[in-house]
Amino acid sequence: MGAGQHELRYDIGGGFAVALCDGEGPGLAERLRDAIGGRRALLCTTPTVARLYADMLARLSSALAGPSELVVLRVGETDKHIESVIGLCAQAQRFGIGRRDVMVAIGGGVCSDIVRVASGLIRRGIPHICVPTTLIGQIDAGIGIKGGVNFNGAKSYLGVFHAPEAAMVDPRFLATLPLPAWRDGIAEAIKLACIADAGLFARIEAMGPTLPSPEEQSNGDCTALVRRSIEITLAELALDPLERGTLCRLLDFGHSFSPAIETASEHRISHGQAVGIDMCVSAEIAVALGRLADAEAGRIVAAIAGAGLPADCAELTPALMRRSIDAVVKHRAGKANLVIPVAVGACDFIREAATLSDAVMGEALAALRRRSAGLAQAQTRYEARS
Amino acid sequence: MGAGQHELRYDIGGGFAVALCDGEGPGLAERLRDAIGGRRALLCTTPTVARLYADMLARLSSALAGPSELVVLRVGETDKHIESVIGLCAQAQRFGIGRRDVMVAIGGGVCSDIVRVASGLIRRGIPHICVPTTLIGQIDAGIGIKGGVNFNGAKSYLGVFHAPEAAMVDPRFLATLPLPAWRDGIAEAIKLACIADAGLFARIEAMGPTLPSPEEQSNGDCTALVRRSIEITLAELALDPLERGTLCRLLDFGHSFSPAIETASEHRISHGQAVGIDMCVSAEIAVALGRLADAEAGRIVAAIAGAGLPADCAELTPALMRRSIDAVVKHRAGKANLVIPVAVGACDFIREAATLSDAVMGEALAALRRRSAGLAQAQTRYEARS
Repeated sequence: MGAGQHELRYDIGGGFAVALCDGEGPGLAERLRDAIGGRRALLCTTPTVARLYADMLARLSSALAGPSELVVLRVGETDKHIESVIGLCAQAQRFGIGRRDVMVAIGGGVCSDIVRVASGLIRRGIPHICVPTTLIGQIDAGIGIKGGVNFNGAKSYLGVFHAPEAAMVDPRFLATLPLPAWRDGIAEAIKLACIADAGLFARIEAMGPTLPSPEEQSNGDCTALVRRSIEITLAELALDPLERGTLCRLLDFGHSFSPAIETASEHRISHGQAVGIDMCVSAEIAVALGRLADAEAGRIVAAIAGAGLPADCAELTPALMRRSIDAVVKHRAGKANLVIPVAVGACDFIREAATLSDAVMGEALAALRRRSAGLAQAQTRYEARS
Repeated sequence: MGAGQHELRYDIGGGFAVALCDGEGPGLAERLRDAIGGRRALLCTTPTVARLYADMLARLSSALAGPSELVVLRVGETDKHIESVIGLCAQAQRFGIGRRDVMVAIGGGVCSDIVRVASGLIRRGIPHICVPTTLIGQIDAGIGIKGGVNFNGAKSYLGVFHAPEAAMVDPRFLATLPLPAWRDGIAEAIKLACIADAGLFARIEAMGPTLPSPEEQSNGDCTALVRRSIEITLAELALDPLERGTLCRLLDFGHSFSPAIETASEHRISHGQAVGIDMCVSAEIAVALGRLADAEAGRIVAAIAGAGLPADCAELTPALMRRSIDAVVKHRAGKANLVIPVAVGACDFIREAATLSDAVMGEALAALRRRSAGLAQAQTRYEARS
């Protein structure tokens, strides 16, 4: 396998490389050491990574040619605010970071968001490297150029576009992922499959609700899923990296009703779970509008449920759906731009909010309720049998 | 005069136009109204502008097609911190600003810095328009893409690169400028003249220490100074707008020793005054190194003094100079890159810190002390005569 296959390039705004550490090219520690060189490095991580990978972090730190310091960030969803960013900036300042030095985010999406915004603000932007350790981070949050933190209840209200110098993805981190975090990532992978790749969708359908075993990971199934997901994400981001265009982004599939679901559940429902529910009801809207075959919607809902994710929740009401459409119209400059599947592997946009009448959304919600009740019965029968 | 002459274009990163309201093209209010269109507009200004231009602001607000709100910011140098930015973000959020709406900065450099950083952070960058009302703002801070705020004692430690949608420069604001603020701006104009335009330098030499009278302003002398200064600034910025290159920037002339002078004087010495002193001692360093004729240094020091600016101060010591060079070496990635004049209208760089020995800097400081003492005696004789 050539070295080129270990790197996926993103060529916008100077560009950066996403290095995939798939066991055949250089390892993560070696790549990081080479990328950092003799610079000062502020290594930012999470309590979980600091505990599970203490040895790796210590080895990395001692292998670096220049001075480094480890910062353990609090990374609950409620820690994702501007004060966390300011606190990290103060730590970087005390560490004496210079404008050519580097901050490294080794953790999930909240970690990379806080590090990206902080490194984007210090001296108007100093380098940062992302080492995403969760599935969501590896295929979404950790490999993009957007950094955002919540502000007075508004999700990602403050932030920056700030491309990492490099992203390094090592799927071996996934072996220690808790099952709920794995499933959150699978929701994003299902999103990417729905918008661009029926083959990836079929692969996920076949995986089932549990983490791949270490054997399945090492035989490359997991790496293939990560690789294909990264390719789709980078290709979509490249279309309009700074979101200056029409604000029609296929990557927004599953991200119209989900913010309100997360908020309404007081974050009891995770981001990935909310994205899954959003995709299910969006598929039902597509059916109600005659844009998607009922059987295709059934496959999408079954794939969500099959991955151990909820397809529905009590928080999803006609009022929440209406409120969500009003909010995205404001956010997307007057257009709804709701992403709906038109087949597994292909999506389109409902541009006008007027198309999304109360009748259409009510019909979609009722259809989802019926379909998920049917799935639950099937699940009960399955469990009774096993 | 064609419409093109009222606009100076800056063509980097999408580019933006600096409109010069010189009394012949459309007026400021008309330009602003047209640029804002039907969008929500958060008008951000300073206590001084709100007081002196209350009528203009009220007329502007009522002429706008969309909703607007006026925010009066505190704009002392000590208010230029991240908390001011966060406070403004909260006001914009309460106002319900959308990602295509606009923030307008009507004030001096601190105002445009706070507005630029806030608008750069909200939803990862929403539009802003700059209407600089001070001379420094009109030729420097208000027409660039850099926004910065101080952080734990470090000048402009946090900030963003965020190009305004447009900048609108109306020299008539200068008529109400206090004399010290005018002189601060003249220090920056002398900087621009030193690096690029001996003709502009001669024009400033002829102006003397007071504000141009309203007649001198209306006959275009002042507008010509502003126009030429803007042209030089935009041309220099265009060379490396995001400062990713060698960090050799002619615009840094006068900005190596001045931060420490401002800090050491606890901001009793203003930014413009500190820049003037920095240019004088940098000129003497050039003489000490055999790079500048003594008479040319004399012209630069005399121009500073002639504008009513100090050429020297007690805070300028060998220790402060050494500390400053150490700091810029850190800031400019290992190089001193000290800008020195090699003639009036042409500058060059001292790249290596080693060239700036204690002996050279001591000789320069002693020469400046002698020269400014001579100027003070001449000034005394002049005052006795008049």
